[in-house]
Amino acid sequence: MPEIKVVTRSRTEFVDITARVQEIVQKSAIQSGLCLVYVPHTTAGVMVNESYDPDVARDISNALEKVAPQNARYQHTEGNADAHVKSMLVGTAQVIPVENGQLLLGRWQGIFFCEFDGPRQRTCIVKTISD
Amino acid sequence: MPEIKVVTRSRTEFVDITARVQEIVQKSAIQSGLCLVYVPHTTAGVMVNESYDPDVARDISNALEKVAPQNARYQHTEGNADAHVKSMLVGTAQVIPVENGQLLLGRWQGIFFCEFDGPRQRTCIVKTISD
Amino acid sequence: MPEIKVVTRSRTEFVDITARVQEIVQKSAIQSGLCLVYVPHTTAGVMVNESYDPDVARDISNALEKVAPQNARYQHTEGNADAHVKSMLVGTAQVIPVENGQLLLGRWQGIFFCEFDGPRQRTCIVKTISD
Repeated sequence: MPEIKVVTRSRTEFVDITARVQEIVQKSAIQSGLCLVYVPHTTAGVMVNESYDPDVARDISNALEKVAPQNARYQHTEGNADAHVKSMLVGTAQVIPVENGQLLLGRWQGIFFCEFDGPRQRTCIVKTISD
Repeated sequence: MPEIKVVTRSRTEFVDITARVQEIVQKSAIQSGLCLVYVPHTTAGVMVNESYDPDVARDISNALEKVAPQNARYQHTEGNADAHVKSMLVGTAQVIPVENGQLLLGRWQGIFFCEFDGPRQRTCIVKTISD
Repeated sequence: MPEIKVVTRSRTEFVDITARVQEIVQKSAIQSGLCLVYVPHTTAGVMVNESYDPDVARDISNALEKVAPQNARYQHTEGNADAHVKSMLVGTAQVIPVENGQLLLGRWQGIFFCEFDGPRQRTCIVKTISD
């Protein structure tokens, strides 16, 4: 199963993985179908949103921090309870249509690996399904 | 690839597209599989939730506005940073099972295109996969 | 279509259904593909997150309650408007890759049915697609 390795350098980090997902889709040689990008972690996520202006990812990260502040009081005592909440809000899977062998992303859309408990070595699974 | 065109008239608007998605599923002639409804925009989303009482969509819209107020301070300076946050929270894709050529929605479920930066002309991609 | 029946006993409850989904995947005999876990309800959801420490689900539930308190003022007057908001935030579908006839969950990941308007009798639909 094709995987993308992501090495994060901060506690919170949004890494644009669009080109690496697209490369896997092209190698899979499917013409039309779906692409699943799946994060097998519980303190990270995957998001499709604007990749042109990096401030968008910063605003999203700040909004998530307001909902689940790192230093609020939680019952899970490993110091990363906020990261689990953020992972739930962003989600661990994105499904994107494939047409003519290409991801059918919108003009401004990119795919981001979302780290909430870095720095770490992470994995994204990419699965293509032909229709 | 089948598409649904949505013309929104307000900045925030939830448009019930259930019947139009169902029509595409029927035309696709798949009997059993999945239906992906995909929004190729970064300031809009797609949601499955109650379509019977329109107040539900209003409450959801209000809750999103509390998390990401339009006029809060953001780094992205196009005036639609809140819409990017709302798009992330709602999501840009919904996957619904198909059985006997029909969407397997629950009794109260409908599919909503969620506009957060209208009015605009928008597109939804609908992709069916047979199992 | 394979289904999982879930009987909830509290208004809010996260029920680990990982083993039951895995059993359906194994019976489906698909080797490689996708598994869709779909909740046909509008006041419940499905989540992939840590299943080892039950405090994680409690923290997530508390974070959702902060965003959409049960007793805030809503327009939908059935007393469960907050549950609709929580369902939107968690989502009604999860897609998980399947490899070698097994769900490709991460080491700490489990699948949770998320009840927000219990106690009730609920259903989860599980659909597998081979690639």
